[in-house]
Amino acid sequence: MASKKYAEFVQKMQNMADLGQAMAVLGWDKEVNLPKGSSQRRGQQMATLSALVHGKFVDPEFGSLIDQLSKTKNLSKKERRNVEITKDEYEKATLFSEEFVIKKSIAISNLYAAWIEAREKDDFEIYAEPLDKMLDIVREESRLLNRGEHPYDSHLDRYEPNLTVAKVDKIFEEVAEFLPPLLKTLSKAKTPKDGFLFQKFSKSKQWDFGIEILKSMGYDFNYGRQDISPHPFTTSFGPEDVRVTTRIDENDFKNMTWSTIHEGGHALYEQGLDASEYGLPSGSPISLAIHESQSRLWENHVGRSKDFWIYFYPILQKKFRKQLQNTSLKKFYKAINKVQPNLIRTEADELHYHLHVLIRYQIEKTIFEENINAQDIRRLWNEKYREYLGLSVSDDKNGVLQDVHWAHGSFGYFPTYSLGSFYAAQFYAQAQKDIPKLQSQIKNGDSSQLLSWLRENIHSKGRTVEADELCKNITGEYLNFDYFKEYAETKFLDLI
Amino acid sequence: MASKKYAEFVQKMQNMADLGQAMAVLGWDKEVNLPKGSSQRRGQQMATLSALVHGKFVDPEFGSLIDQLSKTKNLSKKERRNVEITKDEYEKATLFSEEFVIKKSIAISNLYAAWIEAREKDDFEIYAEPLDKMLDIVREESRLLNRGEHPYDSHLDRYEPNLTVAKVDKIFEEVAEFLPPLLKTLSKAKTPKDGFLFQKFSKSKQWDFGIEILKSMGYDFNYGRQDISPHPFTTSFGPEDVRVTTRIDENDFKNMTWSTIHEGGHALYEQGLDASEYGLPSGSPISLAIHESQSRLWENHVGRSKDFWIYFYPILQKKFRKQLQNTSLKKFYKAINKVQPNLIRTEADELHYHLHVLIRYQIEKTIFEENINAQDIRRLWNEKYREYLGLSVSDDKNGVLQDVHWAHGSFGYFPTYSLGSFYAAQFYAQAQKDIPKLQSQIKNGDSSQLLSWLRENIHSKGRTVEADELCKNITGEYLNFDYFKEYAETKFLDLI
Repeated sequence: MASKKYAEFVQKMQNMADLGQAMAVLGWDKEVNLPKGSSQRRGQQMATLSALVHGKFVDPEFGSLIDQLSKTKNLSKKERRNVEITKDEYEKATLFSEEFVIKKSIAISNLYAAWIEAREKDDFEIYAEPLDKMLDIVREESRLLNRGEHPYDSHLDRYEPNLTVAKVDKIFEEVAEFLPPLLKTLSKAKTPKDGFLFQKFSKSKQWDFGIEILKSMGYDFNYGRQDISPHPFTTSFGPEDVRVTTRIDENDFKNMTWSTIHEGGHALYEQGLDASEYGLPSGSPISLAIHESQSRLWENHVGRSKDFWIYFYPILQKKFRKQLQNTSLKKFYKAINKVQPNLIRTEADELHYHLHVLIRYQIEKTIFEENINAQDIRRLWNEKYREYLGLSVSDDKNGVLQDVHWAHGSFGYFPTYSLGSFYAAQFYAQAQKDIPKLQSQIKNGDSSQLLSWLRENIHSKGRTVEADELCKNITGEYLNFDYFKEYAETKFLDLI
Repeated sequence: MASKKYAEFVQKMQNMADLGQAMAVLGWDKEVNLPKGSSQRRGQQMATLSALVHGKFVDPEFGSLIDQLSKTKNLSKKERRNVEITKDEYEKATLFSEEFVIKKSIAISNLYAAWIEAREKDDFEIYAEPLDKMLDIVREESRLLNRGEHPYDSHLDRYEPNLTVAKVDKIFEEVAEFLPPLLKTLSKAKTPKDGFLFQKFSKSKQWDFGIEILKSMGYDFNYGRQDISPHPFTTSFGPEDVRVTTRIDENDFKNMTWSTIHEGGHALYEQGLDASEYGLPSGSPISLAIHESQSRLWENHVGRSKDFWIYFYPILQKKFRKQLQNTSLKKFYKAINKVQPNLIRTEADELHYHLHVLIRYQIEKTIFEENINAQDIRRLWNEKYREYLGLSVSDDKNGVLQDVHWAHGSFGYFPTYSLGSFYAAQFYAQAQKDIPKLQSQIKNGDSSQLLSWLRENIHSKGRTVEADELCKNITGEYLNFDYFKEYAETKFLDLI
């Protein structure tokens, strides 16, 4: 009886997943292929699909099926967890009236359009009013969701289940304590020369090099593909079709290279999910922070390491003889790890990056504590960039208008970027313990054992455990910022 | 009241169209982009969407809405027709039980797989048994649909509304009377040399040339794009996003060129539909034959005409100097219009093409008259190729296994190819009358007035009229084979 009901549950979940993945295909196609004149129609088609998926999910009949299942005793541990997670998401989804869902979706569409226009005209005022409306809506969302002790908790939990202000505060206190003195020390050393990274590197050769790196990471082109899009991203239509995109700047070697490795890390996670659990929590990524831990682990711990380039730099030099023949590996390695404050999060180095996130986190928290408005946010932004990075914001496009997240109605997303990095440091330290020859393998261009380790310990697990539990299972302890500290100090003090 | 109900009807139709177009995006992506390992999952996702769209369409609530609307008096002529066509389609769709729909869908999937395997191994036996099952199913479909006087009528009507055996018989009698003597006359003339078409033509230059031709036809890349796929096709996700694909054979100039013009003709039709009638019959193509009339008009009447190449041949010679500098326009024109029987429909010349279709039509008709089986079909195929084309079929891959249509469960589709050509001849003759300078415009690479004529007379009409009525409105008479006869005689007798 239970197994028949559970089979019905699986059937419904996989049906919804099929529709969700169809929407993902439309989204991918929109970024990669869409003809100029078709964006409105495509938007409407995606809205129809989205409403349909939402409607199926909040269908009371489905709710009652989950409810019945949650009361049965004869489910396996994995099955029970799939039901529990879905029940929790169902309950959250049904807290919002259809009216509220439509209100938010209209507010997002207005705010996003205003964000585009405000950036084009470098005019914050265009963005301010619709942002104020969005702030009211997300505060209302907090009240409706009513999770945790802090009103911001409801939003953190949407991107990272069970994440709370208390937890993030604790981590960012450590960040704020650790980074400034380290950065001060580093700033006293000679800045490495990196001009050679900004010579002309032909697009087709960069493309080939990116493909070569993806293949060496273990990204399987039988179950994915790479394309070009304005903003690199990874998307999945099931573990058998996980696609990455990249962009190539002919005058900046860094742009394509590390975004490719980053997206490759995300993609390996999706390709490694359990295909037989398609559409279920057990076949889905745990959380955004764990997703980001995979991209950052490959991007930074592998892709910005000296060992990685011991193997790849000679290959690169052969490809770009004219540009790189007079640059030693040592110089190259220093250049790609240059530490310098700047205004743009996505262009930040590995260390300053977390100050960018810290600022956004503090602002988002304040939104839910003090009823601040758009003008306050802009003021806070500029104050904090001066305080934490010592920079004055030249214009809003390089300031408060730089990220799309708020324009998408997402508040609570940013912290997962930093948490992902810190998880990455902790996971990688463990991988080094578990795979004694890891660094010499990397030196030989062989990351296959690392990938197997990630597959076994992380990818194949899906959402069968929570993020913090996963971390404890793998490393013996919960998320601990010390791993990142040690990694950062060892690497960057050695570089000066 | 009526207008409120009609608005509800439009809303539902456009919602279903959104889902149908989403499925089209998945289908396009499958042909153009799909990673090897993902076809099963994608098939499943498309099946889910397809079942969903079908379920929405046959929903009794929707049926009752149509029924109510069909009884109201205050609809405009266009609105009434939209309701009537939808009512007819609703009634047809509800004739099939869910059980039957699933049975056919499984039979198609088995037959298609068998067709692939049978072609690979050149073993008809693999295909025979599942084809026999399909024959039973389509005969059952005839009984369920029960349209017209001949059991084949039900199937003809699905691809070409109101088409009947009586009508097709009449046309193909004329075809069978007209073509053989003309072909005999032509076969006595010297065969033109066309070896120069099979030199090496680089892919990238062919690609550029194809794009140039599409642009000159008026295909709007703001509302579409071209990609590569194994089999060229056109697909539409709404008039703002109509995509074509092509294939390029480096050793055959013909392959890319005329398939591009052909698909371009289909695409211009879709780009010219009334966007404000999206999702409704009034914003949809009339029928397959009218669709094919557009592709054939451009492919043959424009793209294989001497006037077209008076403009384009010098451009082509400049692009492929080495390959074409010693070939005159006259030789080129003769070569691209070489008439010679062969075994493959899709590689046939403009005249023999209709004998290929005639054979398929006769076999399909017999399927519904005489209860023949797969083995009979194969025997008939080989007999008829000997009778009509004087060729003995070397192997089944070049014989009865060449087309995918039956493997897709489609019986009744083929005749629309010939009807499309005959409509094209009649339409083009009228366009020449209505646009006195048409041929001199074509000589100057300017087909804009032709496109405007097609837009006004055909594309923008959607399904507001039936195919035969449209033809009468434009040309003053119903489909008349004489136009094709005159076109064919004038062109091909002049070529020898």
